[in-house]
Amino acid sequence: MKPTVYIKDLSKFVNEEVTLKGWLYNKRSSGKVKFLIMRDGSGYSQCIVFKGNVSEEIFNLADTIAQESSFEITGLVKKEPRSVGGYEIDVHNLKIISLAHEYPITPKEHGIEFLIDHRHLWVRSKKQTAILKIRHRIVKAIRDFFDERDFVLFDPPIITPNASEGTSTLFEMDYFDLGKAYLTQSGQLYAEAGALAFGKVYTFGPTFRAEKSKTRRHLTEFWMVEPEMAFYDLNDDMDLAEEFLEYIVQSVLKDREEELKILERDLTHLQKVKRPFPRISYDDAVEILHKKGIEFKWGDDFGAADETAISEEFEKPIMVHRYPADVKAFYMKRDTENPKLALAVDVLAPEGYGEIIGGSQREDNLDTLLQRIKEHDLPEEFFSWYLDLRKYGSVPHSGFGLGLERTVAWICGLEHIRETIPFPSMIYRNTP
Amino acid sequence: MKPTVYIKDLSKFVNEEVTLKGWLYNKRSSGKVKFLIMRDGSGYSQCIVFKGNVSEEIFNLADTIAQESSFEITGLVKKEPRSVGGYEIDVHNLKIISLAHEYPITPKEHGIEFLIDHRHLWVRSKKQTAILKIRHRIVKAIRDFFDERDFVLFDPPIITPNASEGTSTLFEMDYFDLGKAYLTQSGQLYAEAGALAFGKVYTFGPTFRAEKSKTRRHLTEFWMVEPEMAFYDLNDDMDLAEEFLEYIVQSVLKDREEELKILERDLTHLQKVKRPFPRISYDDAVEILHKKGIEFKWGDDFGAADETAISEEFEKPIMVHRYPADVKAFYMKRDTENPKLALAVDVLAPEGYGEIIGGSQREDNLDTLLQRIKEHDLPEEFFSWYLDLRKYGSVPHSGFGLGLERTVAWICGLEHIRETIPFPSMIYRNTP
Repeated sequence: MKPTVYIKDLSKFVNEEVTLKGWLYNKRSSGKVKFLIMRDGSGYSQCIVFKGNVSEEIFNLADTIAQESSFEITGLVKKEPRSVGGYEIDVHNLKIISLAHEYPITPKEHGIEFLIDHRHLWVRSKKQTAILKIRHRIVKAIRDFFDERDFVLFDPPIITPNASEGTSTLFEMDYFDLGKAYLTQSGQLYAEAGALAFGKVYTFGPTFRAEKSKTRRHLTEFWMVEPEMAFYDLNDDMDLAEEFLEYIVQSVLKDREEELKILERDLTHLQKVKRPFPRISYDDAVEILHKKGIEFKWGDDFGAADETAISEEFEKPIMVHRYPADVKAFYMKRDTENPKLALAVDVLAPEGYGEIIGGSQREDNLDTLLQRIKEHDLPEEFFSWYLDLRKYGSVPHSGFGLGLERTVAWICGLEHIRETIPFPSMIYRNTP
Repeated sequence: MKPTVYIKDLSKFVNEEVTLKGWLYNKRSSGKVKFLIMRDGSGYSQCIVFKGNVSEEIFNLADTIAQESSFEITGLVKKEPRSVGGYEIDVHNLKIISLAHEYPITPKEHGIEFLIDHRHLWVRSKKQTAILKIRHRIVKAIRDFFDERDFVLFDPPIITPNASEGTSTLFEMDYFDLGKAYLTQSGQLYAEAGALAFGKVYTFGPTFRAEKSKTRRHLTEFWMVEPEMAFYDLNDDMDLAEEFLEYIVQSVLKDREEELKILERDLTHLQKVKRPFPRISYDDAVEILHKKGIEFKWGDDFGAADETAISEEFEKPIMVHRYPADVKAFYMKRDTENPKLALAVDVLAPEGYGEIIGGSQREDNLDTLLQRIKEHDLPEEFFSWYLDLRKYGSVPHSGFGLGLERTVAWICGLEHIRETIPFPSMIYRNTP
């Protein structure tokens, strides 16, 4: 019953008769010939119905198939370099599985709201299919990278018991008789427990931000991968981050060139993503802004426009390190050479795609960490288990987080992050 | 700064001097020799401090190291088959990184509540480490299986807009100005949209059940993988499920034998997990219960005790198919030969581990599905996008879901599911 041949494998069946099952992507007619373009999820293939080769019934059937109808065809596979996919089917038989109603997504331009309303159908389009196949390849590259390097997968909880840094950007819910609980924003604190057990771990799962940001870079629900390594300092962390990004981009280039071409992506930008990446300090980055005549006060965090202005100066992802500690999280270790600086690093993607990685060396001294928690007015009791990690075998350690959807948007060259995930959640919509 | 050698790679450094970084797992002393067992996450190694080989200062330092202190040792690697891991370190130098406070988890027996309170430290123990490394291998096998077979990863939303089947077992939250939203229980309906776009897809992510079940088989948060395939009927679905389970179990046996031995798992049970698996109908299963003198009414769903009684009769996972439609979900296709039956399959693990897979062929007829939605008193407007999948190119399709944590519990031979995930969430606790 299930298909025995998929379109992507047609090269193995040249001059053989095969049966394909799929959907009508497009059709055209030219007198005694009908051209049906079938898609089956694995690829596209032109199926040719010659009036002389089939019964009149079947020839007429070919006329009735509407866009996105499901059908089955049997025919001879022929090599045809000019045809989509490089092969054609010379049809002998044709069966309609289900005639589609009038398909809402037509070749004409549709507004974005209309398309997202029909996201369950829009994912069938050539461009959306290409994006999601690239997303899949990126996910696989991420997992392979860490698996090959002996990291242990360490899935952190999604529902977390307490709001470590205020509840304003958290999704809140009732958790049985235990009071309020919140959707995770990051698995990092848990990953630190993992690093001290396994040496090197990574988390990879959905994270949530109930932030009222309606920009082309924000989703309320997105996937994040977070490696955490015992005995790694900030430099080791940066070495790993650049090796990681090179690995992801080069894997996609190797295996998804066809999909990148469908997206009309300029590959030269991606081909340049090779180590080493430029490493500049926050101070250097501020100087770049000032030289470009952009007003920026030392001590502030960079906004999206600043990030674009900085990354414009480089062809590769750049690593900006050593930020003012005041704009960074409480758990980051300070630079011994200048305690006003945190041993943090942000990696900015080229072409204005902004921050895709944020990382740091973590504070490993119990007393210092406790002091930071007090300075930040955080509830000490919530962090008792986290402080334990500094009581029992504390070691220097570092990690970073990479946002999956921003990485997909960058690699695919997309304007808006909403096309990087099957069903995007934004503050103004969470359907279908 | 980061380690250049990990314990698991010691075989490559025999008779060479290496520096290891890790934590003190255990120690003993015998006059002029101190034996320090280091763990570094990759393995365990015995480090031997001979009084004659090191300074008095270092010899005394070896005394002060408490359990779980972090330290660095430099020494010569020697082959020693009787030693843990097969190699020993003849120590030349020793540096303490951080002395641990008195470690709460001692070799004595601790109660389970105490251990879960200290889950962030408990994960360092030999048994917990082994379980989580097996979990990782299972996750990798799951992804590899589908990736190798050209399935496309299709991440469904976690926060879902509507409660399709009542809200009693759902975690509920406010979603900006859009009203209530709920944590997903399954990505299946979304995966069906994916199958019609890509042919074959899988989802793999956390799912949630706010069920007040306090049993050894229930977590409120658990990971589920759900493949969904266009043009697959129930038999194809069962073929895939048995190939999948064999693949997972045989991958773990191949690569995680050491960890299975730490858990004292009887490997003979796992070695038997090879195709074909027995396939019995619901009717056959009821007959088995009746033959065993167990009271059971035709039409009811099996409880945990029934599942155990049925699976006891077999050495392999068994597939029970064609359930009374009334106990199964609205979207399941009926058996044309007996419309009282749903084309459903549950796979029961051996050794009493219960249901690990639930699957079915889906109803693909628009009118029939609409009628089912009405019969189940479900809100039709919520399903309008789902019904679209039957309007535009409907095809026979099937899928199933496998619960990750139950699979880990079965393969590891665990009593309770709470040890199968780094930080388990149960109705009575969600900390640390």
